[in-house]
Amino acid sequence: MERTNTVTLFETIATLLEKKRYSTLRDILTTMNPFDIAAAFEEIGSEKCALLFRLLPKELAADTFVEMDDDMQEMLIHGFSDTELKEIIDELYVDDAVDIIEEMPANVVKRILRQADPQTRKEINEILKYPEDSAGSIMTTECVILRPKMTVEEAIKRIRRTGIDKETIYTCYVADDLATLIGIITIKTLLLSEEDEILENIMETNVISVNTLDDQEEVAQMFNKYNFLALPVVDKENRIVGIVTVDDAIDVMEEEATEDIQKMAAITPTTDKPYDKVGVFETFLSRIPWLLILMISATFTGMIITGFEDALAGSLVLSSFIPMLMDTGGNSGSQASVTVIRALSLGEIAFKDIFKVIFKECRVSLLCGVTLAAANFAKIMLFDRLVLGNMSITVPVALVVCLTMIATIFIAKFVGCTLPMIANKLGFDPAVMASPFITTIVDAISLFIYFRIATSILNI
Amino acid sequence: MERTNTVTLFETIATLLEKKRYSTLRDILTTMNPFDIAAAFEEIGSEKCALLFRLLPKELAADTFVEMDDDMQEMLIHGFSDTELKEIIDELYVDDAVDIIEEMPANVVKRILRQADPQTRKEINEILKYPEDSAGSIMTTECVILRPKMTVEEAIKRIRRTGIDKETIYTCYVADDLATLIGIITIKTLLLSEEDEILENIMETNVISVNTLDDQEEVAQMFNKYNFLALPVVDKENRIVGIVTVDDAIDVMEEEATEDIQKMAAITPTTDKPYDKVGVFETFLSRIPWLLILMISATFTGMIITGFEDALAGSLVLSSFIPMLMDTGGNSGSQASVTVIRALSLGEIAFKDIFKVIFKECRVSLLCGVTLAAANFAKIMLFDRLVLGNMSITVPVALVVCLTMIATIFIAKFVGCTLPMIANKLGFDPAVMASPFITTIVDAISLFIYFRIATSILNI
Repeated sequence: MERTNTVTLFETIATLLEKKRYSTLRDILTTMNPFDIAAAFEEIGSEKCALLFRLLPKELAADTFVEMDDDMQEMLIHGFSDTELKEIIDELYVDDAVDIIEEMPANVVKRILRQADPQTRKEINEILKYPEDSAGSIMTTECVILRPKMTVEEAIKRIRRTGIDKETIYTCYVADDLATLIGIITIKTLLLSEEDEILENIMETNVISVNTLDDQEEVAQMFNKYNFLALPVVDKENRIVGIVTVDDAIDVMEEEATEDIQKMAAITPTTDKPYDKVGVFETFLSRIPWLLILMISATFTGMIITGFEDALAGSLVLSSFIPMLMDTGGNSGSQASVTVIRALSLGEIAFKDIFKVIFKECRVSLLCGVTLAAANFAKIMLFDRLVLGNMSITVPVALVVCLTMIATIFIAKFVGCTLPMIANKLGFDPAVMASPFITTIVDAISLFIYFRIATSILNI
Repeated sequence: MERTNTVTLFETIATLLEKKRYSTLRDILTTMNPFDIAAAFEEIGSEKCALLFRLLPKELAADTFVEMDDDMQEMLIHGFSDTELKEIIDELYVDDAVDIIEEMPANVVKRILRQADPQTRKEINEILKYPEDSAGSIMTTECVILRPKMTVEEAIKRIRRTGIDKETIYTCYVADDLATLIGIITIKTLLLSEEDEILENIMETNVISVNTLDDQEEVAQMFNKYNFLALPVVDKENRIVGIVTVDDAIDVMEEEATEDIQKMAAITPTTDKPYDKVGVFETFLSRIPWLLILMISATFTGMIITGFEDALAGSLVLSSFIPMLMDTGGNSGSQASVTVIRALSLGEIAFKDIFKVIFKECRVSLLCGVTLAAANFAKIMLFDRLVLGNMSITVPVALVVCLTMIATIFIAKFVGCTLPMIANKLGFDPAVMASPFITTIVDAISLFIYFRIATSILNI
């Protein structure tokens, strides 16, 4: 089935539901992917979904439940009998159960935990203890643990017996009696080895693992670097406590990229909900703080203009170039800052490279500055003066504008590459040092330079 | 081994290399991960690497080769004898071989293709034919294909026999005699099923696949949506021609996120090389086009200021608020545009939601506008007038500024959410419609409004 079909399927499902053709509906739903079923449910609306949801076989029901947004999950849970709830929870992987619990109100959480079997409840509580955004908080405890003295045959038997409940069986972990992680072995190696081989002779002993408290962004970057399908999570004593699987790492990557993009655009990331699920007031709250801060900080640029009011009165034509100079400065600065922020977050550069980065950005800025100044000089003299006939634009005025442009771009690129690296070094998120913040600083500096150059060249 | 150790290892390796302790070096290298070995090689420098590289066992050598940057790859290839080159190529997965070939100069490509065995050469040429950024260009042809009538036992035997050369054995594909893809089956299902089960009875027939010509970004989004480890690629006749694995999808995601971020910051994405590998001139070329376009388009704002020169001469204090109004407008607009662009690229909204989006952004903009205007009025009257003692700031002037602010934010948010959606609808990349472009438009409109309100309220 091609994914494009899912859109038109919604209508079919809605029609069949009205006609109460439940067995047909069940046939259709069981051929669908959990993600698409969840999308169909959202399209159809919540009242009818409780009915549809009950048509799903147990395992598919659990997988679909995971893909729904929290409002629909909460609504469904309210409609569940205790037995139904217990069935769903038993089918869920522990890390998915934790994700759901984190979004539910306290009374629903209590009900879920009451229905979970004692072992699951213990594991859920275990994961809930780890700080948000840590490796521990995104791991699952359900992984295949093998012993070093096992043979390949014994290992495969064990996987056959216990694998059904594990989130992945493709990477298995070898631990000693104290649960210390001593090796990993993939199912590929197991299948391609002789049946009587002993695991400790064929396992990979060069194990790369993360600590429960490591930041989830670091974990995601390791997946990107090493192309893993799963990564073991160990505690301080190097005992294996769980694994992070690649699908969770992908979610973290998308989330972190979105957060960086938001911060670069002066938005406070408050939520990882999709755009259409965030309310107006919540959106307002995530946007107003930086707007306020940046508005207040623009006071400086205002003060600089006021300070040079006499110069401006003497040559009013200067004011018409202010927006262009400010915009070009802002754009140049954000080009540098955004590039550096992305390189930092992908681990391509580190603080130790700061002088290399500054040297490179300075050379780029001179190339950009001279090119733009030349283009601008031509444009001012030919278009603004000759075509538009604005005779107050003289060669000295054009010179002032173009010299300011070179200086502005130089400063913009310098500030743009330096601030994020320093922020990173000091432990702040460099993304906050992106365009808007840098624009404000560059605006103030470039206006000051503009009027200084103007007063000395034009003698005003 | 923890990943943090790799940094200090570089020095040990360099010292051992000087002392010609090759067997110790080989022992160290074989415990390391290909990614870390490649990093060590880059640190140590190219001349010595040819020597180190020859110490690696064949398979590890190939895996390490893939992780290197193209300069080092090219350098090594030049040093290889034909036999050495052939050995490496035989070990490479076809998609990795293609990635390497795409970055090499023509004479090196010829040499590589000459050394590849005929089957590999055919597969490489096959993949090279697909357009850049298509599913075909990132797929590998090495996947496990099974027949519907096979038993589980036969299937596992076949995997054991042929699996060693396949990029993944975890998801296997069931195809009929015409190679038409009819089902998928995971190794987990195979291991957990009875040995005499027939594949067509247990395989998943609801197969989600992509076409060879589908955009790689779409492919990556499907991994994100459906949590796959691999995705089959089919031709127009639904015949399976290859698979895309999750590690390649992750690379695409990071690449696309970087590209979006660059476009949002008015950078032309020209390369997917990391920051420290891009030369000064290349960086200049990727940044200058938009700077030029945006500089020229700022002419409009200049013309508006010139047009209201008389008003400005009459109340010079107005000019000191221009930077603040422009910055706030720009920031508000980019908040909206960046949020909408990200939501579009994650598939959270589509063009059909445009009115919902506009309605939401309008309500958010009124909240933001009124809040900022109130804060600004207080700041102007208390700080600028009373503290700084600028008596030319009167209540009417403050009113003009604050009314303009509300209007500017409203327009900024409106333009900021509308333009990316329209661009998307018209088939352009919405990321180009981000901050800088929108800033220029909003600047011009808000300056015009500012002077219109000023001339009517202040009677100038």
